[in-house]
Amino acid sequence: MPVVDMPEEDLLRHRVTTPEPDDLDGWWAAQLARTAAAATPPVLTPHEPDLYRPLSVYDVEFSGAHGHPVRGWYLRPPGDAPLPVVVTYIGYGGGRGVPAQHTLLPSLGFASFVMDSRAQGGRWSVGATADAGAGTGPEHPGVMTRGISSPDDYYYTRLYLDAARAVDVAAGLPGVDPGRIAVTGGSQGGALALAAAALRGDRVRVCHSDVPFLCDLHRAIRIGTTPPYTEISDFLAQHDALVPTALNTLRYVDCALLARRITARCLFSVGLMDETCPPSTVYAAYHEVRAPKEITVSPFGKHTTPTSHLETQLRHLREHL
Amino acid sequence: MPVVDMPEEDLLRHRVTTPEPDDLDGWWAAQLARTAAAATPPVLTPHEPDLYRPLSVYDVEFSGAHGHPVRGWYLRPPGDAPLPVVVTYIGYGGGRGVPAQHTLLPSLGFASFVMDSRAQGGRWSVGATADAGAGTGPEHPGVMTRGISSPDDYYYTRLYLDAARAVDVAAGLPGVDPGRIAVTGGSQGGALALAAAALRGDRVRVCHSDVPFLCDLHRAIRIGTTPPYTEISDFLAQHDALVPTALNTLRYVDCALLARRITARCLFSVGLMDETCPPSTVYAAYHEVRAPKEITVSPFGKHTTPTSHLETQLRHLREHL
Amino acid sequence: MPVVDMPEEDLLRHRVTTPEPDDLDGWWAAQLARTAAAATPPVLTPHEPDLYRPLSVYDVEFSGAHGHPVRGWYLRPPGDAPLPVVVTYIGYGGGRGVPAQHTLLPSLGFASFVMDSRAQGGRWSVGATADAGAGTGPEHPGVMTRGISSPDDYYYTRLYLDAARAVDVAAGLPGVDPGRIAVTGGSQGGALALAAAALRGDRVRVCHSDVPFLCDLHRAIRIGTTPPYTEISDFLAQHDALVPTALNTLRYVDCALLARRITARCLFSVGLMDETCPPSTVYAAYHEVRAPKEITVSPFGKHTTPTSHLETQLRHLREHL
Amino acid sequence: MPVVDMPEEDLLRHRVTTPEPDDLDGWWAAQLARTAAAATPPVLTPHEPDLYRPLSVYDVEFSGAHGHPVRGWYLRPPGDAPLPVVVTYIGYGGGRGVPAQHTLLPSLGFASFVMDSRAQGGRWSVGATADAGAGTGPEHPGVMTRGISSPDDYYYTRLYLDAARAVDVAAGLPGVDPGRIAVTGGSQGGALALAAAALRGDRVRVCHSDVPFLCDLHRAIRIGTTPPYTEISDFLAQHDALVPTALNTLRYVDCALLARRITARCLFSVGLMDETCPPSTVYAAYHEVRAPKEITVSPFGKHTTPTSHLETQLRHLREHL
Amino acid sequence: MPVVDMPEEDLLRHRVTTPEPDDLDGWWAAQLARTAAAATPPVLTPHEPDLYRPLSVYDVEFSGAHGHPVRGWYLRPPGDAPLPVVVTYIGYGGGRGVPAQHTLLPSLGFASFVMDSRAQGGRWSVGATADAGAGTGPEHPGVMTRGISSPDDYYYTRLYLDAARAVDVAAGLPGVDPGRIAVTGGSQGGALALAAAALRGDRVRVCHSDVPFLCDLHRAIRIGTTPPYTEISDFLAQHDALVPTALNTLRYVDCALLARRITARCLFSVGLMDETCPPSTVYAAYHEVRAPKEITVSPFGKHTTPTSHLETQLRHLREHL
Amino acid sequence: MPVVDMPEEDLLRHRVTTPEPDDLDGWWAAQLARTAAAATPPVLTPHEPDLYRPLSVYDVEFSGAHGHPVRGWYLRPPGDAPLPVVVTYIGYGGGRGVPAQHTLLPSLGFASFVMDSRAQGGRWSVGATADAGAGTGPEHPGVMTRGISSPDDYYYTRLYLDAARAVDVAAGLPGVDPGRIAVTGGSQGGALALAAAALRGDRVRVCHSDVPFLCDLHRAIRIGTTPPYTEISDFLAQHDALVPTALNTLRYVDCALLARRITARCLFSVGLMDETCPPSTVYAAYHEVRAPKEITVSPFGKHTTPTSHLETQLRHLREHL
Repeated sequence: MPVVDMPEEDLLRHRVTTPEPDDLDGWWAAQLARTAAAATPPVLTPHEPDLYRPLSVYDVEFSGAHGHPVRGWYLRPPGDAPLPVVVTYIGYGGGRGVPAQHTLLPSLGFASFVMDSRAQGGRWSVGATADAGAGTGPEHPGVMTRGISSPDDYYYTRLYLDAARAVDVAAGLPGVDPGRIAVTGGSQGGALALAAAALRGDRVRVCHSDVPFLCDLHRAIRIGTTPPYTEISDFLAQHDALVPTALNTLRYVDCALLARRITARCLFSVGLMDETCPPSTVYAAYHEVRAPKEITVSPFGKHTTPTSHLETQLRHLREHL
Repeated sequence: MPVVDMPEEDLLRHRVTTPEPDDLDGWWAAQLARTAAAATPPVLTPHEPDLYRPLSVYDVEFSGAHGHPVRGWYLRPPGDAPLPVVVTYIGYGGGRGVPAQHTLLPSLGFASFVMDSRAQGGRWSVGATADAGAGTGPEHPGVMTRGISSPDDYYYTRLYLDAARAVDVAAGLPGVDPGRIAVTGGSQGGALALAAAALRGDRVRVCHSDVPFLCDLHRAIRIGTTPPYTEISDFLAQHDALVPTALNTLRYVDCALLARRITARCLFSVGLMDETCPPSTVYAAYHEVRAPKEITVSPFGKHTTPTSHLETQLRHLREHL
Repeated sequence: MPVVDMPEEDLLRHRVTTPEPDDLDGWWAAQLARTAAAATPPVLTPHEPDLYRPLSVYDVEFSGAHGHPVRGWYLRPPGDAPLPVVVTYIGYGGGRGVPAQHTLLPSLGFASFVMDSRAQGGRWSVGATADAGAGTGPEHPGVMTRGISSPDDYYYTRLYLDAARAVDVAAGLPGVDPGRIAVTGGSQGGALALAAAALRGDRVRVCHSDVPFLCDLHRAIRIGTTPPYTEISDFLAQHDALVPTALNTLRYVDCALLARRITARCLFSVGLMDETCPPSTVYAAYHEVRAPKEITVSPFGKHTTPTSHLETQLRHLREHL
Repeated sequence: MPVVDMPEEDLLRHRVTTPEPDDLDGWWAAQLARTAAAATPPVLTPHEPDLYRPLSVYDVEFSGAHGHPVRGWYLRPPGDAPLPVVVTYIGYGGGRGVPAQHTLLPSLGFASFVMDSRAQGGRWSVGATADAGAGTGPEHPGVMTRGISSPDDYYYTRLYLDAARAVDVAAGLPGVDPGRIAVTGGSQGGALALAAAALRGDRVRVCHSDVPFLCDLHRAIRIGTTPPYTEISDFLAQHDALVPTALNTLRYVDCALLARRITARCLFSVGLMDETCPPSTVYAAYHEVRAPKEITVSPFGKHTTPTSHLETQLRHLREHL
Repeated sequence: MPVVDMPEEDLLRHRVTTPEPDDLDGWWAAQLARTAAAATPPVLTPHEPDLYRPLSVYDVEFSGAHGHPVRGWYLRPPGDAPLPVVVTYIGYGGGRGVPAQHTLLPSLGFASFVMDSRAQGGRWSVGATADAGAGTGPEHPGVMTRGISSPDDYYYTRLYLDAARAVDVAAGLPGVDPGRIAVTGGSQGGALALAAAALRGDRVRVCHSDVPFLCDLHRAIRIGTTPPYTEISDFLAQHDALVPTALNTLRYVDCALLARRITARCLFSVGLMDETCPPSTVYAAYHEVRAPKEITVSPFGKHTTPTSHLETQLRHLREHL
Repeated sequence: MPVVDMPEEDLLRHRVTTPEPDDLDGWWAAQLARTAAAATPPVLTPHEPDLYRPLSVYDVEFSGAHGHPVRGWYLRPPGDAPLPVVVTYIGYGGGRGVPAQHTLLPSLGFASFVMDSRAQGGRWSVGATADAGAGTGPEHPGVMTRGISSPDDYYYTRLYLDAARAVDVAAGLPGVDPGRIAVTGGSQGGALALAAAALRGDRVRVCHSDVPFLCDLHRAIRIGTTPPYTEISDFLAQHDALVPTALNTLRYVDCALLARRITARCLFSVGLMDETCPPSTVYAAYHEVRAPKEITVSPFGKHTTPTSHLETQLRHLREHL
């Protein structure tokens, strides 16, 4: 077990205890409606066709939260047949990178839609999306306390809305079978996959969430000893007057609470030695999922998944998408 | 000498070699004009009079860059006599804190105006100001790459405009002698003092700049091995296509270039073992100042100033403000 | 909770279990009597009157433990009226610094007496006091193991006597109302405030103790993983034969045991994520105080107090001193 | 510049000064001949065809140094047409992983052959190959000092022979055009690409080497302050009698010396802030290459390449392979 | 207590729960028999007689596991009388060093035989022995995962066999009383002492084991947060398919299981703050020893023993060997 | 080269440039005379004769600086013949430990006298000596700044006097040949060996100094980035007013200046990658020695000496003592 967390036998029965905000569903429905109302059709620009042939690659700009422009990559194998599509979300501090990093799925016959994370990118891959409510281009991390004094203003509200919108956009991309949509990601990407599956339960059929971030947040910020969770705890150490407000905001984006809305078939992974996203917080979300679900447990896993898990995921996609 | 920097004998002749942008003065004049046009009168709200008596303390909200609301504290000794005023700027990651942290100057007969730093606060003191071009309240650091793809959008352009505006606001505060204005600060606060003295050369009479940040930036981001300079170098390590653009942006906010505009009497401090703001970058700014100037050299100083420097500064204020 | 300490719900009922030494009161009474017998009147030298006007500042030398000379600063507002006085103690590794660091209280109408810590100073502020009686056996770098083989020789016995003497000296300073004395400090300063309030229960009316050090010492040196507590545990790792002796010595200076003697009205602060002075050790002292008491709990606080706590303390002083 | 290395302007003219061993070519020729003599035909086993369709994936076992079995992955696009092939080598501490990590090239129409690194794997991806001939003397943890007392026994002699053999094996794989072979890799993989291009100059047409390891080794182990170079310097700090022997061994595997044999068209990358493989050592190899060559310079790059470099490499392959 | 381990009161009753492999004794008997069959007589070469007079020092090469050559030092006082002999094993990363490091025992009248550790040496002392049978699969840097996929191939199986053979060799050295053999070592050396005492129960009369490594391994690799235990957990984090196999292998070399075979009189030491070899794992072995035993408990001990323990060991040798 | 220091080729010609204090010899002569005047005869108490037989071991208490009691160990081989004696000094933070750590020399026929370091011990071995004259001003944790405001009060003045006295005491021990005295030590012990050889040039015949501390101090505290040199630079960073005073004090104890007085035959060692005692500072002392001298250069040595150097030292003793 990681030093910060509970013994292995307790993980299996750990449940989130944070109460849901009143009318969480109503609040998100209003946010989604407002975002949908502000949306314009996505714009697809072919990207380096000579380089990527025989794949087709498009630079996509679509309307995210509040209609803000969000970038993404759309890759697909040769041909026009309607294909299942996998929406990929990126981990904390990274951006959508270059399409060359995302060819696995199209090489195996899936369409792939990769969503950039607003105001991220720079730590380990490039981003191209501003947080239009905030800033004019990609930034170096710290976004975790941006707007934390209100769920309406919180950065992650916007990012979750982007993620939900990405599902809608993916469903309408040329050559996509809208009945066969999966979402996937690791860490922050895993949280976004859960959030998208929860907020777009009608559309998402399969959800892959590796070592997800942003679960059981009231616990996570108390036991987390490494960034990025410490961005919040360090901030609240000074801004003590904001503690109740911030804790309230976090309830709106806690994936352990949102997980109850998921109807997609889920495949999680968890590392029992993960100090970044402690395993109890991952289990907190997993235990709330009421749809069919599996979890790959890595007894010595830190905040990575073993390379073999990639094939487990492909097998799961082949079978269920 | 710190490992990262040049031998002591070379510091004394190190000069910034970055060329100024064409019409740097014109560009700043336009920015200042736009900001002035958007300004509304500051609002002063008495803060905890029972607690702070006999001092008077006001929570101030004034118009910063683009008219965005910026917060500050105004403290003054008992009485109404027009007094010299010292405008204080805050170091990276901190906010304006509470007035109790700023009573030194009013206890000695000076009026004191403390400017909050937009979107900062949380590392070591509280902030209260959003980066209205970005975000809705105080944040956990990283602002150094926000908007770096253009001088118009860059975070520090906005913060420097706030700093210049703070001088104007201070000059008009009740009970202030507008002919006796000083600016002061350490690290980022030291950079803001230099910037304010450069952009408001007509108004600022004394400038105190301790171990200033944001000087000789092209050099600083190459030799700096600790945050916050590494926010930029880490970002550019990934965003290699942005390198020329970002280097260009940084020229507009380089205090070593702006320092040539300073007419105030200056008191600097520098630590020869400072790894956060390497001494060569501090000297780069110091050497460009053409006004009367002094520098307190701390041969073993890291990124702090010795406590005795506080009295040196008071002596300088008593004599020159 | 910090990794090193117990869950939050257990903190509220954690009590120190170390037995008091037999006749702890008698032993301290003898130490105090010996110290009082060696005392000579304090010497006050005006310090930089031009710099600090309208405040009055004196460099004070008074007789501490065994009559050793101890330095301090005495600051007061203009005028001669008898005023309440606050005695301030300094954190580990620091010295009394310069008066400019201590103007908050005099600017608000309180007299202020700041005690230097013998043989400290240099880490973050200057000191001016020798440990005249140092050197009774092998030491680990730092002062925490100096003389640890006997309570009579222990460094902290001397420092606590200095602290108690500082209260007596403060009571006799010109322009002080001896019936209105408060003690205050953070970390080591918080321990000294507790010790002074315990040893001078007759004189101290208000005691402020922030994140106090030196509480529940038998526990603290076992769970503490950062300096300065590790000075003791690292020393005893080698000097295993000294373990019982050292544990006995520590009982004489354990502020959780001394706290039972406090009659002053107390205001504590504690950070639930404090790894330097783990919260259970702070609560161990707090729970032993039998006088009226309050504690500011900072759920995400590390070994600092939020800046807002400064105003809480001022409010407490205004009301109770 | 990284602290450990020379100023940027000196990098451009830095040349390796280590003298080549006498008859370096003859020695390698003998090693290669011995290895070739021990070789048996590679064995290809289809790997998870249902998972990877339409790609073809084979688990390959071929004869490496001294005939030892070495594992690899062979991936190709659908169809049987003879294709250009890219041989990929892995960075330090990693193994060949799973084929899902290597689909970029086959998705774009290239055959791909990925060589496992003997006795590595476990740090960040799985390996499957033993170092059958290990164990010739005391070692420092890691493989860098294994057999360092003689070039014949040295671990990297074996690994370079594996790399050279991988080129031969790739040339004979079904559906490969033996006249269109590229080698590629980063860090240790970049060194293996250089070594393979040098030892198989007749066969390799394009060589991509990112931030290569094992260049200008006599300098690298003196200025390198991070693992893995420190494995050698830490070992030699104790084994001082072995210093001349070890320095001699390293001359046989120094890619800056081997680089003179390269005839393939080269694309390098270098990070000017790389502390793991300091830029001067990368330039030392680059400057020795006499074939057409390019280098992507990342002014702020550490020991990674910007994600955009992936497309630069694809463009180079499209044009030259 | 160290952060990673259980409270002190639980240590005293902690027992290993890992089940022994079936026929552990039979398996080791077969390994020992095979090793004995491959053995040739040791070769003794006088080492620097002029330097070490009046002591006699020999460089010894003897047959270890599978007959592989293993090096050692044999030191004895002047004279030919049969003497008790102490076999010393070395800690992780070190080698046998030079005889000058091993004169304590011969200076006090004991013969001393120091076994080198194959494939180690370089971290803090020199080694001279290869791991002739190394290389059976992928490895993580260091030796702890070498051959971990099978007990027959595991590095520690070979090292334990070397250790058992060293006892046999010591018994036959000139001037040794074969009825008076002790084994000793710290950390990895302490594990080898336990293993040798268990595998050569017929010969070993006294066993000293300081802060032993390799005890209660299933627990140790889960709670160990520092090297070398992390070599295994980091490896298994990636090689998740190997977890059951590796856990099985570790059961064969777990000194807490082997300890049940020890008949020698034992003296252990344990540090209650040891993070490298957590105290619960040391107690797990200690509690299984059925022979007369003592343990020196160092309440603040980290992964060292207090210097005073050296005299405790000498006293124990004087009394019991 | 270590990052902090100069290139290897410059080391060979680096000379100390600090000017000697006026009448350095006269000042030391006065100190030595005062110390000699305060001395009483050493007291020898047999230590654990049963444990250490056939060696003789005595716990010695002798008069050090100002007559303060200093402890040591005297060990000798069986017999009464007058023997050469080696005086050993201990590194920073350690104490004399237990005699079992010091049997190498007596086992080879030399008498051995080990001096404890006042007020040290606890980091890695036990000490038994107080610094009876400590406490002359504020200190930074550790002993390096104790009394630094005056050469008369400085801790190292006392420790050097202890070291010189230890030579006198050793000369008079029973069974010692006073014409055959060597001094030895590493790091701080190496500095004490140099100091003793300089201050007792009439008595010391051989001087071994490994990676000596306290050489070329004005340079060392500027380039040293690790403890203990940073105790001084960190202290002076705050106590900037003390800089000239402290620099003056350090001239009295700079072993590079004292080295000119050495007449003993010297054997140094230096590690070219030593960051604790940078190689230039070691060479600064070595180059000043005018007596016959040798230096063992460890090209990759950090702040340790290779184990093989032990035999080099024994060979040197056999030949020259």
